[in-house]
Amino acid sequence: MSKKTLNIGLVGYGFMGRTHSNAFRQAPKFFDLPYEPVLKAVSARNPDRVKKFADNWGWQSVESDWKKLVERDDIDLIDIASPNDTHAEIAIAAAKAGKIVMCEKPLGRTAEEAKTMVKAVEDAGVANMVWYNYRRVPAVVMLKDLLDEGRFGRIFHYRTQFLQDWTISQDLPMGGEGLWRLDASVSGSGVTGDLLAHNIDMAMWLNGPIKEVSAATETFIKERKNTLTGEVVPVKIDDASAFIARFENGSLALFEATRYARGHKALFTLEINGEKASASWDLHDLHHLQYFDYKNDGKLRGWTDIHITDGDHPYMKNWWVPGLQIGYEHTFTHQVADFVASLDSGKPVGPTFRDGLMTEYVTDAVLKSAQTKKWETVATE
Amino acid sequence: MSKKTLNIGLVGYGFMGRTHSNAFRQAPKFFDLPYEPVLKAVSARNPDRVKKFADNWGWQSVESDWKKLVERDDIDLIDIASPNDTHAEIAIAAAKAGKIVMCEKPLGRTAEEAKTMVKAVEDAGVANMVWYNYRRVPAVVMLKDLLDEGRFGRIFHYRTQFLQDWTISQDLPMGGEGLWRLDASVSGSGVTGDLLAHNIDMAMWLNGPIKEVSAATETFIKERKNTLTGEVVPVKIDDASAFIARFENGSLALFEATRYARGHKALFTLEINGEKASASWDLHDLHHLQYFDYKNDGKLRGWTDIHITDGDHPYMKNWWVPGLQIGYEHTFTHQVADFVASLDSGKPVGPTFRDGLMTEYVTDAVLKSAQTKKWETVATE
Amino acid sequence: MSKKTLNIGLVGYGFMGRTHSNAFRQAPKFFDLPYEPVLKAVSARNPDRVKKFADNWGWQSVESDWKKLVERDDIDLIDIASPNDTHAEIAIAAAKAGKIVMCEKPLGRTAEEAKTMVKAVEDAGVANMVWYNYRRVPAVVMLKDLLDEGRFGRIFHYRTQFLQDWTISQDLPMGGEGLWRLDASVSGSGVTGDLLAHNIDMAMWLNGPIKEVSAATETFIKERKNTLTGEVVPVKIDDASAFIARFENGSLALFEATRYARGHKALFTLEINGEKASASWDLHDLHHLQYFDYKNDGKLRGWTDIHITDGDHPYMKNWWVPGLQIGYEHTFTHQVADFVASLDSGKPVGPTFRDGLMTEYVTDAVLKSAQTKKWETVATE
Amino acid sequence: MSKKTLNIGLVGYGFMGRTHSNAFRQAPKFFDLPYEPVLKAVSARNPDRVKKFADNWGWQSVESDWKKLVERDDIDLIDIASPNDTHAEIAIAAAKAGKIVMCEKPLGRTAEEAKTMVKAVEDAGVANMVWYNYRRVPAVVMLKDLLDEGRFGRIFHYRTQFLQDWTISQDLPMGGEGLWRLDASVSGSGVTGDLLAHNIDMAMWLNGPIKEVSAATETFIKERKNTLTGEVVPVKIDDASAFIARFENGSLALFEATRYARGHKALFTLEINGEKASASWDLHDLHHLQYFDYKNDGKLRGWTDIHITDGDHPYMKNWWVPGLQIGYEHTFTHQVADFVASLDSGKPVGPTFRDGLMTEYVTDAVLKSAQTKKWETVATE
Repeated sequence: MSKKTLNIGLVGYGFMGRTHSNAFRQAPKFFDLPYEPVLKAVSARNPDRVKKFADNWGWQSVESDWKKLVERDDIDLIDIASPNDTHAEIAIAAAKAGKIVMCEKPLGRTAEEAKTMVKAVEDAGVANMVWYNYRRVPAVVMLKDLLDEGRFGRIFHYRTQFLQDWTISQDLPMGGEGLWRLDASVSGSGVTGDLLAHNIDMAMWLNGPIKEVSAATETFIKERKNTLTGEVVPVKIDDASAFIARFENGSLALFEATRYARGHKALFTLEINGEKASASWDLHDLHHLQYFDYKNDGKLRGWTDIHITDGDHPYMKNWWVPGLQIGYEHTFTHQVADFVASLDSGKPVGPTFRDGLMTEYVTDAVLKSAQTKKWETVATE
Repeated sequence: MSKKTLNIGLVGYGFMGRTHSNAFRQAPKFFDLPYEPVLKAVSARNPDRVKKFADNWGWQSVESDWKKLVERDDIDLIDIASPNDTHAEIAIAAAKAGKIVMCEKPLGRTAEEAKTMVKAVEDAGVANMVWYNYRRVPAVVMLKDLLDEGRFGRIFHYRTQFLQDWTISQDLPMGGEGLWRLDASVSGSGVTGDLLAHNIDMAMWLNGPIKEVSAATETFIKERKNTLTGEVVPVKIDDASAFIARFENGSLALFEATRYARGHKALFTLEINGEKASASWDLHDLHHLQYFDYKNDGKLRGWTDIHITDGDHPYMKNWWVPGLQIGYEHTFTHQVADFVASLDSGKPVGPTFRDGLMTEYVTDAVLKSAQTKKWETVATE
Repeated sequence: MSKKTLNIGLVGYGFMGRTHSNAFRQAPKFFDLPYEPVLKAVSARNPDRVKKFADNWGWQSVESDWKKLVERDDIDLIDIASPNDTHAEIAIAAAKAGKIVMCEKPLGRTAEEAKTMVKAVEDAGVANMVWYNYRRVPAVVMLKDLLDEGRFGRIFHYRTQFLQDWTISQDLPMGGEGLWRLDASVSGSGVTGDLLAHNIDMAMWLNGPIKEVSAATETFIKERKNTLTGEVVPVKIDDASAFIARFENGSLALFEATRYARGHKALFTLEINGEKASASWDLHDLHHLQYFDYKNDGKLRGWTDIHITDGDHPYMKNWWVPGLQIGYEHTFTHQVADFVASLDSGKPVGPTFRDGLMTEYVTDAVLKSAQTKKWETVATE
Repeated sequence: MSKKTLNIGLVGYGFMGRTHSNAFRQAPKFFDLPYEPVLKAVSARNPDRVKKFADNWGWQSVESDWKKLVERDDIDLIDIASPNDTHAEIAIAAAKAGKIVMCEKPLGRTAEEAKTMVKAVEDAGVANMVWYNYRRVPAVVMLKDLLDEGRFGRIFHYRTQFLQDWTISQDLPMGGEGLWRLDASVSGSGVTGDLLAHNIDMAMWLNGPIKEVSAATETFIKERKNTLTGEVVPVKIDDASAFIARFENGSLALFEATRYARGHKALFTLEINGEKASASWDLHDLHHLQYFDYKNDGKLRGWTDIHITDGDHPYMKNWWVPGLQIGYEHTFTHQVADFVASLDSGKPVGPTFRDGLMTEYVTDAVLKSAQTKKWETVATE
């Protein structure tokens, strides 16, 4: 094929390594893209596991050190899917090497760390993106479109949750594969950075900047065994995080995330109430948008359940036919499609590293407010 | 008060005796009626129980024989809430005595029986009504209004169910209080007359006459103990009844009723699909109407959940405020309100005895088709 | 009848006058009570309207001044259904006169006012109750029972909302019939006292005392016309109120109420997450309880939609049969039934005036926190 | 790689060509399979379009005549995704050439045609499968497992629908790309073969053989323009098809399919009611199973919404993590995975060609009953 190629180097082979690999493979099959992503190389410390991963997904080569990946001339884009404590160093090195950079969220463990990453990509002038994948759920994009069309009028309320229940057991250890999320030194924070960051990124995309927050966090289980050391150690992450907030547009908001909401697996929800319309969505049935329009005939007013599977819904003409739903991994595929399509356009698509930093200004304010027990103003620079 | 009174004589004190008593008491409190219903007398065979019933509900006197009730000059209206095998005799006697007659459904055990009742009230020229109460669910009346407004266009499909699960146990006996419904000699039929009759009455009100049917019935448990005789006897009612049908307007329909649908208590459902709109409703959440309108903006099309509690919804301005739901017994209250309001209007309100007969033409055809295993045309005279 | 009578004197004939009148009439028909409530007298300032109201509901006499009602020897119980600014004076006078007192919520406009009312009824030793009617929704009582049975284990989260949309229009005036709720001098506060008080009363009944709160309130529309004076005046109530809180049992909570949530009429919701179980409920479908039990077979775990209409569900054996729902007004009927049943028992049933005061300690802390922008500890005495 | 390869030859590049291509690509990435499917060649008449299709999906070569494909030695498996009127000829030729055969549903246009195909594969002793993909929805497999575990007891009822609305417009033409489904000479029948066949295949898999049927079909729009000829011609397919049925296990059933149910895109539903349990599912939210178990604590009984995304749910440990849903195309991927896994096992997995024939015995009986207006017994040989 004469199509231009985009050579990808992936760091990490965990859960996110799988979602990204799938997205790079699927995007060009369902979307007409200016570049053909090529799975050039994947890097990770464990040679056997990375080899097996590469074989399965079709990565052409492996490296045991991400620095090798950054040094290779045949790599155009570095995709960071390793734990949070590695993001900054890799991203900065990649940017300095002139690579396009994609990075899993949250960008850094703190806004300070994220700031150095933003500086690096902006100084280098390289295209960049953070994997806040839920922005690419078709129902959410549809909501964004409805807001941009001015259908909601003045916004009064925003509320959003991310409810999970996988850490309730005292017996669950921390550390190691998949469990680094419970270790604050690796993750930076608990649900604030892992879950609320998604809520915040989406909220600011839909409803604009957040001005101030008052937050509370909880660590319900105080000690856990660390599987890497065998020791029982204090848990330093936030198990739950809740805050009230004011947006710059004057709307009042509630945010909540937890891993202790028995019965909920990955219940990311949002609702927005405007003068003329309201809408709600949740991740457990991600192909639905609930919409209430005040302008309809009075007696017929109600919440309309829009099954986001039609050809005139975002992304859906590229998939199947009306009524047939898509799932979770498609959000990553959409992100690849949009990002690759933007490369020659001169117009960056969000969420950029700078967008990712804006989210961390909020998560920092949340974590600080939980300590100070005061309202905290969200930084903007 | 100078308001004219309407003196009621009730026959029966069972479940339906309660719903009717409540309706006569409540209707004038919530609706402005030309007549004040007066609970004059109630009749039933067991003197202790009828006395207790009368005391509780405020019936001014009791009779042990319904014939006495019919003979009394101070009674304007005979309300029949006794088992099906008593309907015809009482209704005919009441009509001959010049009383207004209200009768529980089904009107008779067969169309033939029902026909004699229609003749009696029409010959006597007395107002009459059958208690197909579900026509008075606000959401259903709203649907009728939407149909009458021409919002659906040509109708293609109608489907309706009445699913219960209370007779699944082999240990459940038949006969006696509340269990006469399992005894075909008293009830006339099983679910066809008890449940499907509701579906049919509502279907013909909404979608016009039914032309032909092909049916299947089942009796899953073949023998039960009769509590009145102590004997184990064959069950002669239909435990389940299903039929496909064509309406005169060309729409295709499915009807089903059963007492063997584990998990469903009183799940009366209906759905209607037209060229321009569709709607569905069910009794378990009777205050909702689901409505799909094709004419809306394409990408916003979906099923709207209308919470039927606003002042511009049928009957609802007489109850509470938006968002506050009403329940089952209100359908009887509405029926009293509408019937009493119609008495001086010269315009009968349905379902009249004649409407009740039309339904029995269909139930007769259904029961016959289940025997003949052929399509049966529904009688009209 | 030889049944003892309980002579009621009602103050107020507005929306709540209707719900209470209906409850006093209905309770003895559906529940076996030790006293027969007698609708002795109703008092209100407008003689024509109160006469019409009394005629409709069967109140035997009328008074134009509530003081007359309190003085009458033939009245056992004073029921206060007039605007908030009248509660304290009437309740205190009634208690001093030795009357049983029932009072609409919120008890007073402030905790200080409520405290004087508690003192009055406790000094007088008279039975007393606040009409936090939603405690008597069968699904909510069922939830209380499940909690008391220890099915939830340690509680981690509680969240609750009361969402309405009836004051969004700038054209809506304040003051006068039904609109006194927008006038802070009459109502005391906006949604905090009117709506959140319900959420708080129920939350503390289910989950115990609230320790501390951090709140935000908003007044979206700053000026409205007062229909009583004709002048455009500043709006002093809170249009929306949100707070995060910690319960004494360590659980983290979010509360929110508003009259600006387009599309929601009276959406009172709650959810509670425990170690072993979770449950949720909302007022728009008040006959459902959603329940998640962790102990079930793993692959079968899910949220069970319990249709609270069976004979073994709270209150329901007194109504109809499984599958047939009840509505809003039944909560008041249950409250009358429980209160009357308790009169001879020596055991007061909640919510008592003291319970009502506890709720106002929270609403006061919420309103204060919204001003101070600090966490406020909830008073307990 | 040393993994054995399975060389695929695909016939057809339409909608089903896409779903199959995706499934062959995705299955080995998410499932550990004994063979690596290789996209060897695709055949279709239009050389430009087939080339473009092959390039996009990675088919290594193209053929303009399916016969070439069958003749090629480097092809192990012929996959038929072309219109219904081509199935028999291709399948028989492929079987005779000793190829493994997969075929889109319905197998043939009639049972007679399907029978020749069964004979061919059975005579040749080649592995074979029909793409009734919905059997591989995880929620449906879970239901099958629950039934096999004996959790339902005696089955009383089965009901299933497939509701669409895409042919309501009189302006929709027939013939040509995607519209051959409206041309009876190509499709064999309308919704009976296209939609009901899915319902029937799944019903018999879950609930055993169907004994007898009574059916009605409708053609609502009598004439359409044929885009291939430009002429307006009579429509000979069934637009809607409904039937009542008895299964061999004694349960009573209703089936319905239509393309005239305004508001429904691809609403495949099913419900089964047993003595001890009931369950329901629908394709619009395919990741949910509704389950009612009678044995639970009485007051806690209800319908449990099982979100089929956990590791102990069928197929789901191969995808993401709890709470994250999959979609439509995954059913094809599962079918490839199961079929490839079975090749060396000696145990065929359904639906085989013989299973496909059993379904056509039912669709033939349905179409015949609609003509004869009698109950028709379903053939078994």
